[in-house]
Amino acid sequence: MLTRIDHVGIACHDLTKAIGFYEATFGLVVVSRETNDDQGVSEAMLKVADAPAGAQYVQLLEPLSPDSPVGKFLARRGEGVHHVGYGVADISAALKSIGGAGVRLIDSRPRHGSMGASIAFLHPKDVGGVLTELVQAPPPA
Amino acid sequence: MLTRIDHVGIACHDLTKAIGFYEATFGLVVVSRETNDDQGVSEAMLKVADAPAGAQYVQLLEPLSPDSPVGKFLARRGEGVHHVGYGVADISAALKSIGGAGVRLIDSRPRHGSMGASIAFLHPKDVGGVLTELVQAPPPA
Repeated sequence: MLTRIDHVGIACHDLTKAIGFYEATFGLVVVSRETNDDQGVSEAMLKVADAPAGAQYVQLLEPLSPDSPVGKFLARRGEGVHHVGYGVADISAALKSIGGAGVRLIDSRPRHGSMGASIAFLHPKDVGGVLTELVQAPPPA
Repeated sequence: MLTRIDHVGIACHDLTKAIGFYEATFGLVVVSRETNDDQGVSEAMLKVADAPAGAQYVQLLEPLSPDSPVGKFLARRGEGVHHVGYGVADISAALKSIGGAGVRLIDSRPRHGSMGASIAFLHPKDVGGVLTELVQAPPPA
């Protein structure tokens, strides 16, 4: 069902500073920068690698406000890994299967994610404490 | 420098139960199970995907004792993402470059990791709160 680790989502206080760190230290390159008002974040996708099943990214997330989900995460836990995103070929089928296995779905239907992807989150309490995201990449342009 | 997201390391209280969950819910398959006395963990590697630069895994970690690093992590934060492992082609060169950029190295020289890999950890305080591992895969058999 899972085709790859699509990205690791990392919460940070200062997006520009975090981007600079990942660029300078690890040689990653920003391929997308977006503001997602729905999720209350300003974010950047930095490419780690290309692969046949789709690229892999570090996703850096700065909250737009302290009362957004990422803002609350930072207040509670500090900077660090916020979630893990896995690629799937068919997100609707994956949600049906995973929901059927008893995992609570934060998004019962896919919504818009970074770079045109369809995404959905699973409840961390049902995934061993890991906020887990499914990602279906957009069709090739 | 980074060739892929090699794995996401996830701390759990009960390795057998966590393996069963990832197998049943996401269809992952255990490819290795080891006890690492140095790190104080019993662990399993579950393959997410193969790729030209190397496979990607979910690594499940159960502490061997409460006073091991993963045991202390669980006591402090509960189950969840413990670290992120990135593939590198040459771990010694990567450590030299990253250490030279001012990141403190938990392991200044590579040591033995899962499935014959050479690994080294970077200090999370210098990597935005993320315990970061470098992984150089063993040469093909």
